Amino acid sequence: MDYKSMIYKYKHMKTTKVVTLKSRPAGLPQPADFAITEETVPAPADGQLLLRSRYVSVDPYLRGKMSGTKQPRFELDRPLNSKIIAEVITSTHPGFRKGEFVSHYLDWKEYQLSDGSGLVKVDAQTAPLTAYLGVLGITGLSAYFSLLDIGLPKAGETLAVSGAAGAVGSIAGQIGKLMGCRVVGIVGTAQKASLIRNEFGFDEAVNYRQPDFKEALQKACPEGIDIYFDNVGGPVSDAVLSGINSYGRVIACGAIANYNDTETAMGPSLLPLVVYKFLTIKGFLIADYAVRFPEGLTQLAQWLNEGKLRYKETVLDGFERLPEALIGLFEGLNEGKMLVKW
Amino acid sequence: MDYKSMIYKYKHMKTTKVVTLKSRPAGLPQPADFAITEETVPAPADGQLLLRSRYVSVDPYLRGKMSGTKQPRFELDRPLNSKIIAEVITSTHPGFRKGEFVSHYLDWKEYQLSDGSGLVKVDAQTAPLTAYLGVLGITGLSAYFSLLDIGLPKAGETLAVSGAAGAVGSIAGQIGKLMGCRVVGIVGTAQKASLIRNEFGFDEAVNYRQPDFKEALQKACPEGIDIYFDNVGGPVSDAVLSGINSYGRVIACGAIANYNDTETAMGPSLLPLVVYKFLTIKGFLIADYAVRFPEGLTQLAQWLNEGKLRYKETVLDGFERLPEALIGLFEGLNEGKMLVKW
Repeated sequence: MDYKSMIYKYKHMKTTKVVTLKSRPAGLPQPADFAITEETVPAPADGQLLLRSRYVSVDPYLRGKMSGTKQPRFELDRPLNSKIIAEVITSTHPGFRKGEFVSHYLDWKEYQLSDGSGLVKVDAQTAPLTAYLGVLGITGLSAYFSLLDIGLPKAGETLAVSGAAGAVGSIAGQIGKLMGCRVVGIVGTAQKASLIRNEFGFDEAVNYRQPDFKEALQKACPEGIDIYFDNVGGPVSDAVLSGINSYGRVIACGAIANYNDTETAMGPSLLPLVVYKFLTIKGFLIADYAVRFPEGLTQLAQWLNEGKLRYKETVLDGFERLPEALIGLFEGLNEGKMLVKW
Repeated sequence: MDYKSMIYKYKHMKTTKVVTLKSRPAGLPQPADFAITEETVPAPADGQLLLRSRYVSVDPYLRGKMSGTKQPRFELDRPLNSKIIAEVITSTHPGFRKGEFVSHYLDWKEYQLSDGSGLVKVDAQTAPLTAYLGVLGITGLSAYFSLLDIGLPKAGETLAVSGAAGAVGSIAGQIGKLMGCRVVGIVGTAQKASLIRNEFGFDEAVNYRQPDFKEALQKACPEGIDIYFDNVGGPVSDAVLSGINSYGRVIACGAIANYNDTETAMGPSLLPLVVYKFLTIKGFLIADYAVRFPEGLTQLAQWLNEGKLRYKETVLDGFERLPEALIGLFEGLNEGKMLVKW
């Protein structure tokens, strides 16, 4: 290596912090399940970019990848990864320039190299950068496609949403309103109840922590529940399903109540209910809708620009807070999308 | 009333036995939940037919109508009813002649009047009369439409069928074979295992009563289960679902294991599984396919004529045996369709 190259390499070498998986959690993830290490980022080779992570999407599905119930799982002593908005710091790639922002599934590192594959440019002029992780990202697309394709909402029907103050739930509920449904949200605090009623326009909010939850839910859904957009699973969903109407549709988007289970959770058998009431219960992998993402994004962006769709974010500041953010999801810490920035 | 009319009326008046609902069963129906009474059948008015029941379809769904979980429920001290093949004994209706056979939902009576509405003529020359209650009736149509529409079977996939020796299950499994699936049936006796393998061409039969049922099922489904045609619910289905593949489809056709439950049955929570594996679990009301019945019947009749579809019947002889036949369904008494004739 000649002198000039060595200088170049030294100048462009960086150290970066990395969040790795230290141990597979049993139950609620603990800070000790994560490790924060440092490593060197080599100088970019020809055609590579150096990326600096700016916003990290922190989502409940990551829990399954930590323990392996969701594939591909995270490997021990390797970085976690999720959707990240990153800034291009240096680039010798013809398609990307310094200062541009990109979105992709990236490692939980402050800095990392990329050969550009999979990176999608995002435009900070069109929408706030964080929107690309939320309402204009997988979050919004998940709410949009699953509610419309599985839920088949019709004006006048009642849509119940669990995790209604969360990232996906808050958008699903608003889309339900746009479709003409009566929308009832289920939340865990009075503050979230107020949020979904006042900010997101839900017709009713019911707190599942109140002792008479089931009765309160029935009262909020006088004509029963036609569509259930489920982000939580567990006893809350058992209660909701007991009040579902014939031909009801259940969008099984998430089951955060069960992600930390150490043994199989038990509940009322659903199959007889499905038989008696001709129900449809359906899960989905959002990646399977990829060819339709442009359609979804166009519609979501239009609603956003028209002020018909609002969103909320809970942003923790500091790379080291990534584990805290992930653990916080299971404690109901977030309103709307959980993000970490630094 | 003139003398001639009185003679006519007397001559045509009949007494008939009737099976009525004496009490709503708690748990497994008991003989005492039924009553067999006698009543007079008035002489047919102008345009009416006198029908003599010949074959009565006895089906698990009737249990739900006895207790009211399935609507419309049977009323106390009123006759039960189900699909019946009846012979026209007398008719002043222009559309029906003495000696013809008709099929419809009729009361559990030996004799009854009809104004012809809803009656469908069945032709004993085309197929045995009982086939119109089974493979060419709601039984066959239920298997056909739900397996094809919900199950979406593809050649090479594995289809598991519970209640595989039963009326619907035995047909669903054979249709699965016609679609190119590997078909594994779940049954409760060695005799039924032999029946579905040797008569109905299932690839494998697994007895759920064996202690290592789950392991035996896994062994019979080395590539997992893509489609589960469920007639039983309960612990058998819990075991099957634990081995279902991603994107699996569950046809919730029946839940006979739960029909006699006196309290809500508990089992492993299904929602997390639906989320993790992108499952579809769907019930159906066969009446919703009514406009497509001709298509289904044409296909089923063709397969039947080509010898590609076989069926089995368990026929009890004697009107008084109707309660016994219904109770017998829950004891696994039947192979194939349960019928009562006299």
